[in-house]
Amino acid sequence: MTTRSDPIAATCPAPFAETERVLLGHGSGGQLMAELLADLTPRFGVPVLEDAALVTTGSPEVVMSTDGFVVTPRFFPGGDIGSLAVHGTVNDLAMMGAVPIALSLAYIVEEGLPLEELRRVTSSVAEAARACGVRIVTGDTKVVGKGAADGLYVTTTGIGIRLPGAAPAAANGRPGDVVLLSGPIGLHGVTILSTREGLGFESELTSDSRPLHGLVTAMITAAGCGVHTLRDPTRGGLASALNELAAASRVGVELEESAIPVPAQVAAACDLLGLDPLHVANEGCLVAFVDPAEANAVLAAMRERPEGAAARRIGVVVADHPGRVTVRTLVGSWRVVDMLVGEQLPRIC
Amino acid sequence: MTTRSDPIAATCPAPFAETERVLLGHGSGGQLMAELLADLTPRFGVPVLEDAALVTTGSPEVVMSTDGFVVTPRFFPGGDIGSLAVHGTVNDLAMMGAVPIALSLAYIVEEGLPLEELRRVTSSVAEAARACGVRIVTGDTKVVGKGAADGLYVTTTGIGIRLPGAAPAAANGRPGDVVLLSGPIGLHGVTILSTREGLGFESELTSDSRPLHGLVTAMITAAGCGVHTLRDPTRGGLASALNELAAASRVGVELEESAIPVPAQVAAACDLLGLDPLHVANEGCLVAFVDPAEANAVLAAMRERPEGAAARRIGVVVADHPGRVTVRTLVGSWRVVDMLVGEQLPRIC
Repeated sequence: MTTRSDPIAATCPAPFAETERVLLGHGSGGQLMAELLADLTPRFGVPVLEDAALVTTGSPEVVMSTDGFVVTPRFFPGGDIGSLAVHGTVNDLAMMGAVPIALSLAYIVEEGLPLEELRRVTSSVAEAARACGVRIVTGDTKVVGKGAADGLYVTTTGIGIRLPGAAPAAANGRPGDVVLLSGPIGLHGVTILSTREGLGFESELTSDSRPLHGLVTAMITAAGCGVHTLRDPTRGGLASALNELAAASRVGVELEESAIPVPAQVAAACDLLGLDPLHVANEGCLVAFVDPAEANAVLAAMRERPEGAAARRIGVVVADHPGRVTVRTLVGSWRVVDMLVGEQLPRIC
Repeated sequence: MTTRSDPIAATCPAPFAETERVLLGHGSGGQLMAELLADLTPRFGVPVLEDAALVTTGSPEVVMSTDGFVVTPRFFPGGDIGSLAVHGTVNDLAMMGAVPIALSLAYIVEEGLPLEELRRVTSSVAEAARACGVRIVTGDTKVVGKGAADGLYVTTTGIGIRLPGAAPAAANGRPGDVVLLSGPIGLHGVTILSTREGLGFESELTSDSRPLHGLVTAMITAAGCGVHTLRDPTRGGLASALNELAAASRVGVELEESAIPVPAQVAAACDLLGLDPLHVANEGCLVAFVDPAEANAVLAAMRERPEGAAARRIGVVVADHPGRVTVRTLVGSWRVVDMLVGEQLPRIC
């Protein structure tokens, strides 16, 4: 007979506690919210994040950038919505030649999200920020009812300081510039799509999500303002990024298809799905227009870093056909590379 | 008989064009997105908002703040989600004694939102920013599928510069400080709730949403660092804001119920709904702990501005019962004022 003092009964597992989930009250501004923040914010190395924070920049000029992240699934090979939200904003700053100093973090959470998932994403934000050498200084959390969001959306905003001598801008491309690409394309988009749809490629693919400010620092250290333009080809892919730069700089771009590194698994997935790898999103590579006199030095500096080890020339900037990007195909013919039209891969970032 | 050239037929309204709506492709990073941004961004006085922007602050220190806005309904008496998103972030900067310099703007849009509504909100953001003397410098737009958001969510992040002599902080309250409130409470929360639920009060009520950096400038000009703490009592209301300040400063707060201005319509709505006006959100008033030697000067400065015309003393800071807020009721008894527990009014901002 089992009694209260029965040692076996006492060691049996207790009934599963109901999984803790985010409640509307966690967004109330009241007691529940204070408890949630006390749970989450120590991950940033501070007891509490205030509504606003004083940030010492040491400079009379800052670079500012913001990005919302709605990626689905939230966890994928190579990252999650938290690390992606840090890398994405850090990279937008880096494309202006800036190193990040401070980030803000705004969550929109759907009621019912497991608290454990929010903790995991928050830890990932904190870890990615530490790895980038940037502080999360302030934040906000809103909770919306069941069905009014899809789990969790994250908006990060960053401020950074320009590197000395850096002045890259979308409009600064010049005929004669060399087009450099830091690494293989298509990895992020195909990884997300494959993970979401269970296509099977995800077992062999990993998102390229990573910070690029170290690579940019190396490039600008090597060539200063010889780095005319920088762009991370995220949504819309390399094709859309180059079209935007060509339009802003009023120049043409001529690519060599044979020089553009498309991993075999990305090519296979794109073949299967009818996608053009040039339109697939990336989160860890950059394309640059560089003064031809500096191109070799920049390329060498890029290749010394892991995230630029596979850097290469992929084309040239020309005065002809301003605003248009063309590619010489493997068979030697030329085709126009258009911006992405319509929506190829929703919720990729 | 009606012919093609019939003048009456020619003046008949054309068939309604299908209402333009936001498509997933508007968030693609491609051609459709470029068209959407070309439609929206001229409202900010620039042809295009880049992914990142250089901001001249003129100071080696900035204040940074971020807030997500999920208010429903998106349009309400006294404002909309766009103006609220500007005022909310401007006010978070102001509570640190800072005037705003630049804002970033991140949209998460549900597929199917009428484009006209996105235009209207964007115009409202632009107009509110202009009225605050702050620039929208960079932005981001994500589109999620039907059902993955509720229309439109807006996240703004601001950077600002501290006023000379300003150093308000939540932990700076001292026993003896006078508690000042800039205006009537409860207007925003009750207006939103009434509009959403069709309670009828909305015909006589207006949200107090407005920027407070001008008021803060007047207060700090009058008293400098005699303004010890500033807080805008948004989510969680005046009660939660004062509890947070009392805890951070390790002081007690003693309020006079008779001194707290609750508009008659707010009181009536709260009676009907079983709400405590002290827990209802505000978007256009602030509470301050001020050095007693400076309180009269600060109060006079506040009253000279429209947003502070009804400013008054509502209590004192004490050394007793640190972390606790009490109120002397109209009948002379004391009761404890707690933080909001649970969720009283979801999606109020």
